Amino acid sequence: MKQLSRRGFMQSAAFTAAALAARRSGAAPSGQPGDWSSDWAAQAVIDTRRSPFAKLHGVPVRAVTIHDGFWKSRREVNVETSLPTMHALLEEHGRMDNFRRLMGTSSAKQIGPYYSDSDVYKWAEAASWAQQSNPELFRANIDAIIHLLQGVQESDGYLNTYFQDDRKPQRMTDHAQIVGHELYNLGHLLQAAVAQYRATGDKRMLDCCIEFVDGFLIPGFGPEASKRPIVSGHPEIEMSLIELYRITGEPRYLKLAGYILEGDSRIPLTSDDIVYLYSGAPFTGRKRLEGHAVRAMYACCGATDYYLETGDAKYLATLTTLWDDLVRAQMYVTGGVGARRKHEAFGDDYELPNLTAYGESCAAIGNMMWNWRMLHATADARHADVIERALYNGINSGMSLSGTTYCYRNPLAYDPTASGPIRNPWYDTTCCPPNLERTLASLPGYFYSTGPDGLYVHLFHNSTLVWKLESGVPIKVEQATDYPWEGRVRMLVTPKEAAQFALHVRVPGWAKSARVTVNGTEVSGVNPGKYLELSRLWKPGDAVEMDLGMQPQMLVADRRVAEDQGKVAVQRGPIVYCAESIDQAGKSAPRELRVSADTNFSVQHDKDLLGGITVLEQAGQHISEQTAPDALYAAINSSSIGAANVRLIPYYAWANREPAEMAVWLDTAPTKS
Amino acid sequence: MKQLSRRGFMQSAAFTAAALAARRSGAAPSGQPGDWSSDWAAQAVIDTRRSPFAKLHGVPVRAVTIHDGFWKSRREVNVETSLPTMHALLEEHGRMDNFRRLMGTSSAKQIGPYYSDSDVYKWAEAASWAQQSNPELFRANIDAIIHLLQGVQESDGYLNTYFQDDRKPQRMTDHAQIVGHELYNLGHLLQAAVAQYRATGDKRMLDCCIEFVDGFLIPGFGPEASKRPIVSGHPEIEMSLIELYRITGEPRYLKLAGYILEGDSRIPLTSDDIVYLYSGAPFTGRKRLEGHAVRAMYACCGATDYYLETGDAKYLATLTTLWDDLVRAQMYVTGGVGARRKHEAFGDDYELPNLTAYGESCAAIGNMMWNWRMLHATADARHADVIERALYNGINSGMSLSGTTYCYRNPLAYDPTASGPIRNPWYDTTCCPPNLERTLASLPGYFYSTGPDGLYVHLFHNSTLVWKLESGVPIKVEQATDYPWEGRVRMLVTPKEAAQFALHVRVPGWAKSARVTVNGTEVSGVNPGKYLELSRLWKPGDAVEMDLGMQPQMLVADRRVAEDQGKVAVQRGPIVYCAESIDQAGKSAPRELRVSADTNFSVQHDKDLLGGITVLEQAGQHISEQTAPDALYAAINSSSIGAANVRLIPYYAWANREPAEMAVWLDTAPTKS
Repeated sequence: MKQLSRRGFMQSAAFTAAALAARRSGAAPSGQPGDWSSDWAAQAVIDTRRSPFAKLHGVPVRAVTIHDGFWKSRREVNVETSLPTMHALLEEHGRMDNFRRLMGTSSAKQIGPYYSDSDVYKWAEAASWAQQSNPELFRANIDAIIHLLQGVQESDGYLNTYFQDDRKPQRMTDHAQIVGHELYNLGHLLQAAVAQYRATGDKRMLDCCIEFVDGFLIPGFGPEASKRPIVSGHPEIEMSLIELYRITGEPRYLKLAGYILEGDSRIPLTSDDIVYLYSGAPFTGRKRLEGHAVRAMYACCGATDYYLETGDAKYLATLTTLWDDLVRAQMYVTGGVGARRKHEAFGDDYELPNLTAYGESCAAIGNMMWNWRMLHATADARHADVIERALYNGINSGMSLSGTTYCYRNPLAYDPTASGPIRNPWYDTTCCPPNLERTLASLPGYFYSTGPDGLYVHLFHNSTLVWKLESGVPIKVEQATDYPWEGRVRMLVTPKEAAQFALHVRVPGWAKSARVTVNGTEVSGVNPGKYLELSRLWKPGDAVEMDLGMQPQMLVADRRVAEDQGKVAVQRGPIVYCAESIDQAGKSAPRELRVSADTNFSVQHDKDLLGGITVLEQAGQHISEQTAPDALYAAINSSSIGAANVRLIPYYAWANREPAEMAVWLDTAPTKS
Repeated sequence: MKQLSRRGFMQSAAFTAAALAARRSGAAPSGQPGDWSSDWAAQAVIDTRRSPFAKLHGVPVRAVTIHDGFWKSRREVNVETSLPTMHALLEEHGRMDNFRRLMGTSSAKQIGPYYSDSDVYKWAEAASWAQQSNPELFRANIDAIIHLLQGVQESDGYLNTYFQDDRKPQRMTDHAQIVGHELYNLGHLLQAAVAQYRATGDKRMLDCCIEFVDGFLIPGFGPEASKRPIVSGHPEIEMSLIELYRITGEPRYLKLAGYILEGDSRIPLTSDDIVYLYSGAPFTGRKRLEGHAVRAMYACCGATDYYLETGDAKYLATLTTLWDDLVRAQMYVTGGVGARRKHEAFGDDYELPNLTAYGESCAAIGNMMWNWRMLHATADARHADVIERALYNGINSGMSLSGTTYCYRNPLAYDPTASGPIRNPWYDTTCCPPNLERTLASLPGYFYSTGPDGLYVHLFHNSTLVWKLESGVPIKVEQATDYPWEGRVRMLVTPKEAAQFALHVRVPGWAKSARVTVNGTEVSGVNPGKYLELSRLWKPGDAVEMDLGMQPQMLVADRRVAEDQGKVAVQRGPIVYCAESIDQAGKSAPRELRVSADTNFSVQHDKDLLGGITVLEQAGQHISEQTAPDALYAAINSSSIGAANVRLIPYYAWANREPAEMAVWLDTAPTKS
């Protein structure tokens, strides 16, 4: 069934009285639906505390303090350099003037694509998350943006600088919806408003959103015959409407999200459109990840949020099918997704080229966001494995170490003579930079969740959690570790008083030799890729020590990944490595190197290189083949082979020096074992 | 300039009096324009004898007799098995009944796609070429087809079983032209008619064509405001109209071809259409090979034919640009073209995947046909190199050794567990089988051409040429060789009387160590990839002996071909090799093998294997990596490496036994030199 009738939709399980009752009876650590002025400070990145089908519930960003180490320096650069320079660039490129023009305070012309407002909103969202770690940050900037919003919003609630003024007649036409990102812009405005509310309790941006949704969108658009149809076009609105529902408790926002996830057959779309847009037809009809990768990831986010609220089994079945497709056949080893430059799209299964990989930063972030939602729906650690893979590699590569330039594409091989610069300070479609910024700013919120029986530990870093269990017992967890460079993690668990609960500690899927002790006594049942459940009477000062093991691993890809045949990727802990020609003797290109599959690496931490990285080195080979120049195919005239010290750096740190050839997947020259 | 105005087109150089005069003054060994009833037996596969801008002129198929060896057995299978079984399948699948239905002699419904007539025509073309080698073949079948044509053709000349009767209203609408292949069908009818005429002098099919073109097409369609526009849709009509011009000498056919090559802006096409269709916009605006590969190749054929007649420099410049794109970045080492399954299309430059290669048989044939025309325009041996590469490999692979099954796709790597059968007796779009059949049937016509100063030898095989030089001197050339298995070729040159002329002997581009003697005396100036000009007073019985050298060669691809990095292809003479798992110890998959780049192969001819092939064997390596099952990425748990005898067979002979994994590009394990 490709298209539910609108009537069928209205009668679907999502909106039965029983479902709504289930929602209202869900665990509610604080606050109640409708009572939404009081508990903003307790709301997590997504707030599933009252979601009846959530197995886990996040903790607020502010509950976790990141101490010295890997992420602290990245997050400092984010707030000290990236967010300020991106704000300046948004100003410089007229993104704020688009608002001022409509307010009469600027004579500049409209500039930038029709989704330019969203980049301002994503910046505001990032700045808001950052305020949870430092409330003094960006207050004036956010106030100024709120001033712009209030100044531009029309009396019926509509707000979109591209479709106001002279382009008003195009507003919410079928065409504008499909290509115009009107709901996408609103979705990012909603996410900014939600983040601002959760940071400060300030409802002014939320009020703008509610005026838009209640004043303009819901009265005019929907499945009813008296209303006009809408299509998501670029999914984003779905998950943000559901967050608005979580804050307000108003079912109409969830209902609207569900309607959008179903599509509306009154808007005719070609089958190509439906693939590309990943919207416009029932989400539950999807069989695989396809089309525009960011659209698909954001649609999956919205659909998972919808499942978390409604428990609709068709949604969970579809999401499970799509997730299997992701990890079985469509995800890069970096956690990036989207194989094709054309349409920024998923490819066929196992179509994972390296040199031409698209791997948009936003798509990797979307992958993390989706898996965060799936983790809360299932409590399955495999989702946390994907989050960690994407976070440390295919997302982290997106921002330069300086914090001033960004990758739009994150390929797994690179030839600077064939491509332009991969890191740039600005893109006219500047979706990725603020997306990276909001991810780093909200990162503390991804470390822990609570469940009915205790606490889940997802990520590792020097850090302190101060929060409370769902039983109400306050708890502090102090992590001490040099993760991801070292595998030992010490967790000091301090409930306010002795309490029986389960500490679910994630054992990463790659940690095949992981060992765990509690107060010095080794525990059994340590399974990579699962949460280790430590159920006991926890007393203040109990210590969990993990040793995850950090032996470098050689990975091979499924043989159907054509470009990776005969090649290996090197991973140590969560970090995927690559070879850059700049690090090799004679600046040899990675394609001239062969690593030995059964040779140990020397592992050296170099605190002065690339912000402090652990470098892997190995006795491999260098192969040079002399052929006729400039031929597509040329006979080898002579071939020389020699020993070579192969030097690998973390993938995320590539392209931070002079332009160089890079490859993640390397040829092997196995030596006899 | 994307679109010449129609007025500009009418004034272009092609139709100035000067150009027509040049045409009429061109070398005309026999016959004159308009005098087209007499010289059919002297006409080559394409008849460039009166083409003013042709440097070479082909010889008729009947002038060359293929003796024992490589192609004789393939050609015997073609006429004894392939053509009869394909005729039976065309009957079985209702392709002839489509005609009988319209004649009232069958009650069957129309069946097959809108281009089904073309498959009947291509079969008739193949059978006609075969008649030049054996006039007794297929006479009744061809008479029966002519009977169908005459029975179905309408009074205004229109003939297309799909668009007659109930679909008549759709005829020659813009949509039907673009997707309906109406001109494509006519083009193949023309090619069949031309082949039949050149085989037998029988003009009945040609008369049908002329009625269609003169009675229906030209009166109704063209650039004039009073006529309706046309678009090629699937190029094919262009080259066939020019052959009709060559036979009849009537400029209106050349003019119509030129109009179609320009496109007509009155038919609105999207930019995607113009890429995919490789028509509908000025051919001279093309910058690269793109879109549907067969369309692109056939368009290039027509454009080269157009250049051969008009000398339009813009055409030659465009063709040169496109050819450079072909050999620099878009051709497989097998001579196949078309990287993408989607739209059966060319990819980006250097996008040459192996496992997912499309490489349609028809596209490789189109490549050969285009290069045959380019060779006649330029006398540049590089075009003959491409012809030989495609012919022996990416075309030859298209037909099974049994002659009863065909490849539509010709990938360079294969996994039978992931794909269906690669060779099939029938495709509902059965374009490739009769295309392969016409290529084998016409093959003798590709061995020689004449030029003003003598004779060109393009291909090598046991064979006898009986023809005449352009000076009028009769000449016989007898080749004795075991080519392509051995590199020694002896040519006995027997002019009827001693004559001064140049024998231009092709030295293949791969023959880096070629040596040539004339009457036992070694000659200098032997350059691979060039014609060796032997200008002398040739006397009956003079002997040219070549030794082309048959040392196996390791080829590497341009580093920008991502899937081939770190891999080699093995070629010996014109034959590209592959590894099939069935030939390896333990049926090891090719991806588990490594060949040694600097090890000699043992070269053994096995007359009982796969119709008689030369097998290459080498001491290489076998690598087995044990990992977790069923993971997209898995750490290597253990790796074992051992010596392995790597056994390679010619690529064209693959998939003639039980299903097996196959690869052309193999990993290397270089040993120190």
